[in-house]
Amino acid sequence: MKPGAGVLPMGSGREELRKALLQTPLQDLTLDEVVERVGETLRVLEKAGGFSVRYLSRAAEILLEALRSKCWLLLSFPANIIATGLRGLLADLIRGGYVKAVVTTGGTFDHDIARSLGGLYYVGDFELDDVMLHEIGVHRLGNVLVPSESYGSLVESFTHRLLEELIQVKETWSPSELAVEAGKRLTDRHSVLKACAESGTPVFAPGIVDSAFGTAVFTYNESARVSSGKRKVRLDVVEDMERLASIVYEAECLAGLMLGGGISKHHVIWWAQFRGGLDYAVAITSAPEWDGSLSGARTREAISWGKVKPSARHVTVPGDVTVLLPILVAGAIRKLREDSPPT
Amino acid sequence: MKPGAGVLPMGSGREELRKALLQTPLQDLTLDEVVERVGETLRVLEKAGGFSVRYLSRAAEILLEALRSKCWLLLSFPANIIATGLRGLLADLIRGGYVKAVVTTGGTFDHDIARSLGGLYYVGDFELDDVMLHEIGVHRLGNVLVPSESYGSLVESFTHRLLEELIQVKETWSPSELAVEAGKRLTDRHSVLKACAESGTPVFAPGIVDSAFGTAVFTYNESARVSSGKRKVRLDVVEDMERLASIVYEAECLAGLMLGGGISKHHVIWWAQFRGGLDYAVAITSAPEWDGSLSGARTREAISWGKVKPSARHVTVPGDVTVLLPILVAGAIRKLREDSPPT
Amino acid sequence: MKPGAGVLPMGSGREELRKALLQTPLQDLTLDEVVERVGETLRVLEKAGGFSVRYLSRAAEILLEALRSKCWLLLSFPANIIATGLRGLLADLIRGGYVKAVVTTGGTFDHDIARSLGGLYYVGDFELDDVMLHEIGVHRLGNVLVPSESYGSLVESFTHRLLEELIQVKETWSPSELAVEAGKRLTDRHSVLKACAESGTPVFAPGIVDSAFGTAVFTYNESARVSSGKRKVRLDVVEDMERLASIVYEAECLAGLMLGGGISKHHVIWWAQFRGGLDYAVAITSAPEWDGSLSGARTREAISWGKVKPSARHVTVPGDVTVLLPILVAGAIRKLREDSPPT
Amino acid sequence: MKPGAGVLPMGSGREELRKALLQTPLQDLTLDEVVERVGETLRVLEKAGGFSVRYLSRAAEILLEALRSKCWLLLSFPANIIATGLRGLLADLIRGGYVKAVVTTGGTFDHDIARSLGGLYYVGDFELDDVMLHEIGVHRLGNVLVPSESYGSLVESFTHRLLEELIQVKETWSPSELAVEAGKRLTDRHSVLKACAESGTPVFAPGIVDSAFGTAVFTYNESARVSSGKRKVRLDVVEDMERLASIVYEAECLAGLMLGGGISKHHVIWWAQFRGGLDYAVAITSAPEWDGSLSGARTREAISWGKVKPSARHVTVPGDVTVLLPILVAGAIRKLREDSPPT
Repeated sequence: MKPGAGVLPMGSGREELRKALLQTPLQDLTLDEVVERVGETLRVLEKAGGFSVRYLSRAAEILLEALRSKCWLLLSFPANIIATGLRGLLADLIRGGYVKAVVTTGGTFDHDIARSLGGLYYVGDFELDDVMLHEIGVHRLGNVLVPSESYGSLVESFTHRLLEELIQVKETWSPSELAVEAGKRLTDRHSVLKACAESGTPVFAPGIVDSAFGTAVFTYNESARVSSGKRKVRLDVVEDMERLASIVYEAECLAGLMLGGGISKHHVIWWAQFRGGLDYAVAITSAPEWDGSLSGARTREAISWGKVKPSARHVTVPGDVTVLLPILVAGAIRKLREDSPPT
Repeated sequence: MKPGAGVLPMGSGREELRKALLQTPLQDLTLDEVVERVGETLRVLEKAGGFSVRYLSRAAEILLEALRSKCWLLLSFPANIIATGLRGLLADLIRGGYVKAVVTTGGTFDHDIARSLGGLYYVGDFELDDVMLHEIGVHRLGNVLVPSESYGSLVESFTHRLLEELIQVKETWSPSELAVEAGKRLTDRHSVLKACAESGTPVFAPGIVDSAFGTAVFTYNESARVSSGKRKVRLDVVEDMERLASIVYEAECLAGLMLGGGISKHHVIWWAQFRGGLDYAVAITSAPEWDGSLSGARTREAISWGKVKPSARHVTVPGDVTVLLPILVAGAIRKLREDSPPT
Repeated sequence: MKPGAGVLPMGSGREELRKALLQTPLQDLTLDEVVERVGETLRVLEKAGGFSVRYLSRAAEILLEALRSKCWLLLSFPANIIATGLRGLLADLIRGGYVKAVVTTGGTFDHDIARSLGGLYYVGDFELDDVMLHEIGVHRLGNVLVPSESYGSLVESFTHRLLEELIQVKETWSPSELAVEAGKRLTDRHSVLKACAESGTPVFAPGIVDSAFGTAVFTYNESARVSSGKRKVRLDVVEDMERLASIVYEAECLAGLMLGGGISKHHVIWWAQFRGGLDYAVAITSAPEWDGSLSGARTREAISWGKVKPSARHVTVPGDVTVLLPILVAGAIRKLREDSPPT
Repeated sequence: MKPGAGVLPMGSGREELRKALLQTPLQDLTLDEVVERVGETLRVLEKAGGFSVRYLSRAAEILLEALRSKCWLLLSFPANIIATGLRGLLADLIRGGYVKAVVTTGGTFDHDIARSLGGLYYVGDFELDDVMLHEIGVHRLGNVLVPSESYGSLVESFTHRLLEELIQVKETWSPSELAVEAGKRLTDRHSVLKACAESGTPVFAPGIVDSAFGTAVFTYNESARVSSGKRKVRLDVVEDMERLASIVYEAECLAGLMLGGGISKHHVIWWAQFRGGLDYAVAITSAPEWDGSLSGARTREAISWGKVKPSARHVTVPGDVTVLLPILVAGAIRKLREDSPPT
């Protein structure tokens, strides 16, 4: 029986268990390896004409058409994606100029900062004993294992140092400004925040306070309150709406690539309505439609709200982003590169 | 063929279509009718020993035990619930003193305000033609139909008037303060915001900007910018963390009833970790576990993070909240009332 | 920690574990108690206008209309339903004359015979340790616990005795004939086979060999082969097609109530095509549509095959039969009884 | 709007619609192209450590280990797989000697025969209008389009001719014997039945009557009844149990690769119990566990029944077979070929 599948084995210490569990750090993908090594997979799957493949195939066509027509792409994803090696793939897409803006959750800041600072995350299992994991200081995010030392204190100390610097400049910061400042201070090439900062791609995080990063703003202010001479940082979440609005209003063409659901997905389509909706919309979700959740809502529903144009090409792909996204991206980008091969 | 199932029938005008579609307004439930009319359902289902019933049954036991032991209950839900008649049931639970705090999304403000101001929502279908709905000004939220006049402008004008008043008092408001002020101005007894305001139950909405309400703050400020003499409202999302922290730190016992996933669910368990986790945790979700989404994560996973106590009673119930919650609440509250029958 | 949640606790013997686990026998429901105690639940859920409730509500309307118009009802279900207390509810529906024919799997024979002969099944958990359960002789069917003595040998010895008698009559038997003979020999009023035998409702089980019952036919024949003087029983699965065909051809109106998927569901719609399709179709399934499985296929798909009429009323209800069926049946039968109240 | 998305457009005839819809015939995959073109995909996905990938990765390891250790492999699948290009991939696996026996449904006979005789199936959409499809004689199987001329009459006339020949030899045939005879008469190299016949791989179909093939046996017998001089074919489904039993009893090692659920999956694990269970078990399913369905049951559950060995390596992979199987097979077979590269 694998360690941790049952209760904590007698006589095995904390360190032995950690060693047994934390063996395979997950690694970030690069766009080049994905295109090169996965590039033909979608074509093979398509040939067989199978079932959910068809949605994926349409997603690749839509993404390709959006990119070919230089349509501005809003990319949304929840934080769990950034706890996997898809982080590097997204960073490369951003750095490659494919993405106009990112919309995500506060947790993306947490995992991107933690992993950029050397925090290792490991391949694990959904079925591990969570009581045991708690005892040995390992967090479980699905089947990704996050040793406590790879996470909380890394994020908190980085954020506190960041705020200490930023408060010298001004008191009030929007989430997208914080993203730039965080990204500028990270050196990991797989960092999404760094890629955004370098490429001038704004990161919108309307629910940023719901995270370790957000909590670090709170604890920074708490310590500022009790220690004289320190000032509180203020978060201005309204200001970012102006910035997002200006992108949406200026866009001649607007596309959405929405991975997963939640506030990130909603924020993309919400703002798209103020220009008459997205021109292209691709969503990947594992959530069913029948309970009326936003996460499970098909892109079709957004048409009734004016959040996706009646004339838009759109598709909702059912399944797991970590399986589907590399296949989708490889399929679309491979074809895009065939348009204009490097000379 | 029912109206709207296909393309827009020739010769049928906008008004005929609206009349055909908007026939059955959905109605808010009350706790009393749910307990009285659904109260025995769970016992019958349990007797048969069937499958997901077992999770529901355990949820009712846990909720009952939490309530009996006067454990503070954090209630989280996404906005789609408030677009249904479960809104009235939740309002009654809040008014009845069962809930210590509410954690929700910005959309809850939207739907609660809109419906409290008389905006009617209607029973519809998932399969309706969204292009047709868009043409006749009806939004679709799953299978709930939201006529445009029942929603956007109601929320915006209410919020603008609210802010106009509030700016006279002070410049900076937290989401939970705004919830109180909104709730005080609503007269619908089924309003969640009103029930919270009356009972002193704070409403936390960390992602409040992602909504019509949040957008109305933005547009209010835009208009203030161009018209001299008006001042901008500032949203302080950090301050609410202090308020939520104080509840969490003071709680001798803390329970979570988490309907659906997303930022609301995460915020409850996130803050619970700072006191060593929830003592009782009940989650209802339709999301699968296997894609690592927060929405699909089982309560068990939270133990590894210290967000649910290792000793906690906890359960994740798979399914649709709109089917399961009335059965769960009826089962638990019925038993609770049997403890101390009204004299 | 509850028994069996982890590995087998040291020092606890087989009997202690069995005692700890096998505490709550599940019980069969009756139609009367379901109608009486659950009868108002659907109306309350409908009022709130929530999400998957709408499918359930339509299912109740369709079932009611089919019953009111004396449409012949084909009822299909897989065997797991018969391992729960829904067995009694189905038996009462059959006995009450609501069902024209049953289509099911071989496992239905197994669980109905085992439970009718006094084999107790217990309320359990999905999360129990299956290695431990195997060691103590308890089978797990979802979260229903089946002690080995409540199952295999009960079915085998009953079937062997049955065949011993039947071989005196003739050599070749169809599954529907075997169902009658088995049902006639059972005395449990909650038995589906008994209810079918008593009411003259045929039971079709095209895949009957895939079961303990089917295997007992095989082992009976094996023993007949080695012992002189015994003759082999022959199973004629083709003959039942004639019987099913005659029902389908004679039906002036044909309805299907399909619980779950698989061969039982398929057999109903397959045969319905030879008369131009079902007039009414209600399916309940937890399977998603997107992988092209028959279990997940919506009733709509069957129209393209001529298995459901283009003019039919039909609906696919997403969710768990053990939660939904009592609510559906209670809702429909309650209204039906209001048509002609007992005098 | 694409043809058929709404109601039948005025003025467009049956042939125009068929032409518009039936444009892309799906094609069978070969093992070689899958290994060559998809072979690196699993490694890339694994590297990222993402979510359901981990199950797929374990499945590839288990399949590889089973094949390396010459463990006998039982392959089960429902008929919808054979309506896609995965048919060719399975045929190649069978022809390559990787499979000891096949367990499937009657529909596999239908689609394999129809497609082997030149019946073309087409890439389609789940969302097409089924009433329209019915009117133009196109069946929809998920999003695979089956023109009526590619299916029913092809299967029926082939089967009638087959039976006409077989009745000259003997009266009683088991499903596995019929599979051999059908396979011997097909010339399509992508045919699963042909591959099985050529390689001596038995095909078990316990529910064979539930199909067009099974119905053709019935109609053959009906015509024999009315026309003097013809004899009826008898189907012996009990005999195949002996054949399957002998494989199971003789196996020194037994593995199961179960695609989808239903009777095919159940028959594999059911028979495995009589030798103490499977040594290796890989299942792919889209069905959830929580409703107690066999299709959704995890391989773990089978341990409690003795259908999978307590010591077995086993995994249930959540998702769509048509996406996952090529990636799984490519990953495993590629490594297997590296063991002993062709010289």
